[in-house]
Amino acid sequence: MKSPICDMLGIEFPLVAFSHCRDVVVAVSRAGGFGVLGASSHSPQSIEQELKWIDDHIDGKPYGLDVLIPENIATAGEKNVTWKSLESRVSQRHRDFTRELLEKHGVKLTTAEVAQDQPQPFDTERTMAVLEASFRHPIRLIANALGVPPKEMVDMGKAHGVPVAALVGAREHAVRQVAAGADILVVQGTEAGGHCGEVSTMVVVPEVIKAVKAIRDVPVLAAGGIMTGRQMAACMAMGAAGVWTGSVWLATAEAETTEIFRDKMVAATSRDTVRSRGRTGKPARQLRSAWTEAWDRSPDSPGALPMPLQTLISRDAFHSIDRSAAAGNARARELVSYFVGQGVGLVDSVKSAGAVVQEFKEDFAEAVEHMNALLAD
Amino acid sequence: MKSPICDMLGIEFPLVAFSHCRDVVVAVSRAGGFGVLGASSHSPQSIEQELKWIDDHIDGKPYGLDVLIPENIATAGEKNVTWKSLESRVSQRHRDFTRELLEKHGVKLTTAEVAQDQPQPFDTERTMAVLEASFRHPIRLIANALGVPPKEMVDMGKAHGVPVAALVGAREHAVRQVAAGADILVVQGTEAGGHCGEVSTMVVVPEVIKAVKAIRDVPVLAAGGIMTGRQMAACMAMGAAGVWTGSVWLATAEAETTEIFRDKMVAATSRDTVRSRGRTGKPARQLRSAWTEAWDRSPDSPGALPMPLQTLISRDAFHSIDRSAAAGNARARELVSYFVGQGVGLVDSVKSAGAVVQEFKEDFAEAVEHMNALLAD
Repeated sequence: MKSPICDMLGIEFPLVAFSHCRDVVVAVSRAGGFGVLGASSHSPQSIEQELKWIDDHIDGKPYGLDVLIPENIATAGEKNVTWKSLESRVSQRHRDFTRELLEKHGVKLTTAEVAQDQPQPFDTERTMAVLEASFRHPIRLIANALGVPPKEMVDMGKAHGVPVAALVGAREHAVRQVAAGADILVVQGTEAGGHCGEVSTMVVVPEVIKAVKAIRDVPVLAAGGIMTGRQMAACMAMGAAGVWTGSVWLATAEAETTEIFRDKMVAATSRDTVRSRGRTGKPARQLRSAWTEAWDRSPDSPGALPMPLQTLISRDAFHSIDRSAAAGNARARELVSYFVGQGVGLVDSVKSAGAVVQEFKEDFAEAVEHMNALLAD
Repeated sequence: MKSPICDMLGIEFPLVAFSHCRDVVVAVSRAGGFGVLGASSHSPQSIEQELKWIDDHIDGKPYGLDVLIPENIATAGEKNVTWKSLESRVSQRHRDFTRELLEKHGVKLTTAEVAQDQPQPFDTERTMAVLEASFRHPIRLIANALGVPPKEMVDMGKAHGVPVAALVGAREHAVRQVAAGADILVVQGTEAGGHCGEVSTMVVVPEVIKAVKAIRDVPVLAAGGIMTGRQMAACMAMGAAGVWTGSVWLATAEAETTEIFRDKMVAATSRDTVRSRGRTGKPARQLRSAWTEAWDRSPDSPGALPMPLQTLISRDAFHSIDRSAAAGNARARELVSYFVGQGVGLVDSVKSAGAVVQEFKEDFAEAVEHMNALLAD
């Protein structure tokens, strides 16, 4: 396809797939799209293993890496913050609320087996080390979520001749990202899974395209709610150079999601998600569950802690919840949740990632054919 | 254009324009689209005058009528409810809050000059009388917002051979509307101005199309955020038979909006709207202003009253606010608001309604051309 994204990334079909699962990354790139591995929870050592595995399986096809360096975080400016050193900042009230919520659902709260001396989640220094390790592999894109990336990340991309993508949810943010040197904008509507803004894909995509055009010619990937090739065609009709997708890969056979969560995805309608601070401390769209209801609406909710502290709470909690649900505890199942967009309402079965790419291509072609038929004499 | 909507409505370009302003209705229909007059505040007498004027100016082009019969309203089942009889249901606390809010902005609260013995706003019996009067004119569509229309409205449409459209914001509602006999679904995303649900246009349109296809072949008009022909093409690429638009006409020279509100529209970004109960008692998207902030966020807000009571409050308040703002009171201007969608972020000037239709056509053609160029060898 003739899109600037295809040239920049060396692909034939401008469907970018964000996934924490290396199998999805490989399947999408091999099928003609572009897989992007979510690396936010990796160390330089573990990313090395993942990317080696990818290189061994991807048949030389291009792929990228996504990191999460928040511009605003409670620990901004502090050095050597570890998981352990953050523990004391979680109030007893928050701990009690979490423990009692899980107990109500028959779940015993246990601590996830993570080395407590690891750097804090979303630690910039560690993330830069992860990127450095990644550049020993043939990555073709680096992307950052949650604000303007640090200058050294932009410089690192330039030094390696690899485009730097930035996720934005509002026009003002897009303008700042272009000024900071972003090569690609991922413009994400409020319907997207994970951290998101308040403006819909249908509006924010043309709004950003219009604003950015006046500054510098930066291609836009549309994101938020996109689960089919018809929607991809819709976004490209509005001027996007391609699409960035996430939720659709969570319902694939390769995905890292639990079987219980995939079942919940198939059952859900588009009204079953919520934009909540309950998982990370920042507004992020996720499946509505007893967890989000308790944090967002319960009269005795202590309110979510700011990032990265809420992640300490939810990591241990969901580790315990998922284990209990998998063991057959139906009440634990009520708590099960994960980041997912409103597009979950379009999921009606679990497929292979390769089959999803194939369907995108067919749907896209059908959409264009349909448009031409509308205008035919 | 080859769309089922064009055949049903007798038009060439499936752009439906909802407006309270007869001039917009006429301009759009004359330009090849389809104007729909919002009749919710009309009496059988006043609608007679409006439609006569339209008939005299529309050159025989087709047009329609939109009414608002809420399925859920605080006065459900009551007979002969007038504006006057509702007055006693507005608490002193709500009156004081309103008066004090306006006073803070230098606005004296006065009562709008409306005959107090008029039926309550959104009164079903009166609305049916308005429809009856309207059928003495060549209307080609009747539409209802806020739930399944009463059976007599659907029957009335059938008796006159005129399609009945229903506005929906969720899959479940669409399925109920099809069962109730709707001929056209207006599927509206959360980004829309006025009463709206929580799911975005990008998601709810394909979700409803998919669900409805399994029942009966009902054409879908996409709504919510659509301000350009590129977005119209996007929605039709997803399978919509056309689009239903509202906000874009508020920024036309013909519109009923005040000059101050139009100036605010031009200045606003897509993040300057809010889905609030502050105007009608039901969640409706409107421009964020000191009014919505006070009702939604002020610690001493008494909370909005249910429909139709909040309309009693806001009608008098905005009558006073708009008058004071027009007289040059800058603090009154801070309160000025009106129903508008997130698409307001795409408005950068005020144009004539006819010019907007023309731009839609050109943008639409460009979008299709662009899609073909993407796939060209």
